[in-house]
Amino acid sequence: MENWLSKRARLTPNRCALKSGAKQLTFFQLQAQVLQQAGRIASLQPRKRVAILTDNTMTGYLTILAVQQLGLEPVLLNWRLATNELNQQLNDAAVDLCLAADRLAQPLAARVISFSQLSQQTPVASTPVAEFPPNGIASIMYTSGTSGRAKGVLQTYRNHFFSAMGSVLNLGLTETDSWLCCVPLFHISGLSIMMRSLIYGMTVVLVDHFDATTINQLLCTQPITTISVVPYMLKKLLAQLPTDKHYNAAFRCMLLGGGAIDRETLTHCQQRQIPVIQSYGMTETASQIVALNFASAEQKIGSAGQPLFPVQIKITPENATNGHILIKTPTLAAGYLNQMAAFKQHFQHGWFDTGDIGYLDAEGFLFVTGRSGDMINSGGENMFPAEIETVYQQHPAVQQIVVAGQSDPTWGSVPVAYLQLNQPISAAELQQYGRQHLAHYKVPHAFYQVESFPRTGNGKVKRRALTPASGRPLQ
Amino acid sequence: MENWLSKRARLTPNRCALKSGAKQLTFFQLQAQVLQQAGRIASLQPRKRVAILTDNTMTGYLTILAVQQLGLEPVLLNWRLATNELNQQLNDAAVDLCLAADRLAQPLAARVISFSQLSQQTPVASTPVAEFPPNGIASIMYTSGTSGRAKGVLQTYRNHFFSAMGSVLNLGLTETDSWLCCVPLFHISGLSIMMRSLIYGMTVVLVDHFDATTINQLLCTQPITTISVVPYMLKKLLAQLPTDKHYNAAFRCMLLGGGAIDRETLTHCQQRQIPVIQSYGMTETASQIVALNFASAEQKIGSAGQPLFPVQIKITPENATNGHILIKTPTLAAGYLNQMAAFKQHFQHGWFDTGDIGYLDAEGFLFVTGRSGDMINSGGENMFPAEIETVYQQHPAVQQIVVAGQSDPTWGSVPVAYLQLNQPISAAELQQYGRQHLAHYKVPHAFYQVESFPRTGNGKVKRRALTPASGRPLQ
Repeated sequence: MENWLSKRARLTPNRCALKSGAKQLTFFQLQAQVLQQAGRIASLQPRKRVAILTDNTMTGYLTILAVQQLGLEPVLLNWRLATNELNQQLNDAAVDLCLAADRLAQPLAARVISFSQLSQQTPVASTPVAEFPPNGIASIMYTSGTSGRAKGVLQTYRNHFFSAMGSVLNLGLTETDSWLCCVPLFHISGLSIMMRSLIYGMTVVLVDHFDATTINQLLCTQPITTISVVPYMLKKLLAQLPTDKHYNAAFRCMLLGGGAIDRETLTHCQQRQIPVIQSYGMTETASQIVALNFASAEQKIGSAGQPLFPVQIKITPENATNGHILIKTPTLAAGYLNQMAAFKQHFQHGWFDTGDIGYLDAEGFLFVTGRSGDMINSGGENMFPAEIETVYQQHPAVQQIVVAGQSDPTWGSVPVAYLQLNQPISAAELQQYGRQHLAHYKVPHAFYQVESFPRTGNGKVKRRALTPASGRPLQ
Repeated sequence: MENWLSKRARLTPNRCALKSGAKQLTFFQLQAQVLQQAGRIASLQPRKRVAILTDNTMTGYLTILAVQQLGLEPVLLNWRLATNELNQQLNDAAVDLCLAADRLAQPLAARVISFSQLSQQTPVASTPVAEFPPNGIASIMYTSGTSGRAKGVLQTYRNHFFSAMGSVLNLGLTETDSWLCCVPLFHISGLSIMMRSLIYGMTVVLVDHFDATTINQLLCTQPITTISVVPYMLKKLLAQLPTDKHYNAAFRCMLLGGGAIDRETLTHCQQRQIPVIQSYGMTETASQIVALNFASAEQKIGSAGQPLFPVQIKITPENATNGHILIKTPTLAAGYLNQMAAFKQHFQHGWFDTGDIGYLDAEGFLFVTGRSGDMINSGGENMFPAEIETVYQQHPAVQQIVVAGQSDPTWGSVPVAYLQLNQPISAAELQQYGRQHLAHYKVPHAFYQVESFPRTGNGKVKRRALTPASGRPLQ
């Protein structure tokens, strides 16, 4: 396919491509600015891969696109990572040039050029690539994982194209579509919005950090059609949306990633007529591959939804209630950089094992019950942290709970819980509550109150980093 | 990808898939009926390919889909063809079973089973294919061409998918979209609507024959968003649309194939606020690959538009005003059945030569000026019939004109014209008119009045079948 930016600048030159604060660019202007930035980057004589360390700013946006225009591979770095984690990724990707937002620039295991320094460069003549080859690497981003070495996921142009197609066949498209991006550009949730903008000819409203009041204001007053959020964002938006305000009439999708919605939040969305579309996906699938439409949310609560049009899902063993979730999708990444063996281990007869556990109901709706590595086998009984957490999350005293397995001389392993509380409560009361709602073997054997949870750079709780020493045992 | 019908029946079971007269089917019902029809076809022990000879009826629609469900290749026959032409295609495709609408059933070089006979068959158990393989043949249809042997175009599922994507990225998509199909299902114009219905989850309003009053009535009163037409249909619709009627509010696309619009018709569309989107494509590209949006129609009159998102076009020699139109598109057919050499001859360094002649303007809009085989070289000057025809088509006496080359001892070849007239006119007057508007060498040397034009099964004028003996010379 032709270079998407060239194509889009030709097809819809005057349509708005990007809004960031008071600034905005048409696709024609976007192309001009991206090519200027590409010329500056070319002056630094970059090699095959260029790392980018940025927050959600217009310059960061232009820079990512500019690297693609040069036919190079952007390596998207998470600025929440520690220096040594960043260096591991730079080394793994053999990157010698890192372009960094001024506030994020720091000495790293690569030549670091701040955006200010970059803006001083005199652009050199550089021809943008004529085509985006389907199997060319469009982006590399590291999944920190909850254990083990970070893996550089190789996302191709084909992956992004089919991801955009799967989404459009579910969410529709109009020529005035506009997607608010307050999720990070260095995550697939943010990057996929950028790629869709080029493919769809769609406006991106770029927001640098999540502030519920600001976002609600934008959604009420601007013709924004879609926003991507994670659960905590959705809850904040709902909590802070004034009762006399409504999102603009064109708004049609609150796209929620990162876990199924709880009934209370769903009810709240229904009351406020906010069409929440839940989704399931991963860095390896170039964003959502399963989605639950608003109309089915009530009936299928707890489900991640149905596989998008280009996506197939199966459970193995077939019809298992806690089986492995296997997928076949044209959005599946080309591999893990330098770890192709680890990538290939996921495959079973052409299907990719997501590492997630769950089941499909009779109508083909997916329910994700846990991660395979998180399974707790207690005296021959299998359970997943998520089912226990879901029960306790309903208890008013519990602010957040994470369950993990702990080795046990009698049972092999037993579930224990790590919590943050809204109000004091005893371990006995929590166990009593658990026995009312769960099989007895699933009731945590101990409860530890923690100050905070250990998290990966992507914000996922590192379940396996939790030990009794992480907290204070409740009595 | 998963079998599109299975997928769609799961994703949107209750959405309306098909309306035909008073009958309508949801996707769930469509699947049930198609599978029943597949069971009946399976009882006939079909081989790899099954021919279908049908008009635009619900049974024909179900039958085409049923053949795909069995993993077989539908060969779509044009019922306007003569028996010997049909037999040539049946033989070429090695088809031994032809399913035919009752009124079209006739003795042919294959076992012919009428739809009535088919309905008497007891369905046998048959499992629909799990997947539609991207390179699997979804449909075979013969391009009659204006000369030479008919070619069976091998259209893959991938072709249809990308065609649907190119269209959606131009025309948008909503969950209430509805496409009126009065173009034949045995042409790519009609078949592509069927395929899009499965991919988009879109309603098809199937109409068996073109009657402007009926179609206008449907477009005014039903929530139809799109219709595919050819120029004569558009003109009739415009002429017969009562001045106090408007198409329904959701209507957003009159998709016109088969030639650029004239200014008068465009003005008429603008006055009636009918968004006409012109398009260019061919059987080999699984429908439109270039489209001219309504907003650009005025400024770019005569243009076929811009290549759709997945499509690339180039002209060779570069910047030629009458160059060959070359394309690169994922919708390009897999080949011609039994004539792969003829197919491969079209390729130049990975680009497919359409056989059409034209140019791209500075903004990338395509203008098609003729067919390469139609070029007339007269004393070293090249010209195309279309440019001459366009000029004469403006003359009030001329109803229709077709220009062709005729060998000439002095000039090698000269243009001559074949016409149908609105009113009597002399050859001298027509030559005088031509000299005012054309280079002198382009003015036809002779004018022949004809009763009718020889046409292919697809309705294209067979330019090269015209000879002076075809008509009566104007004095």
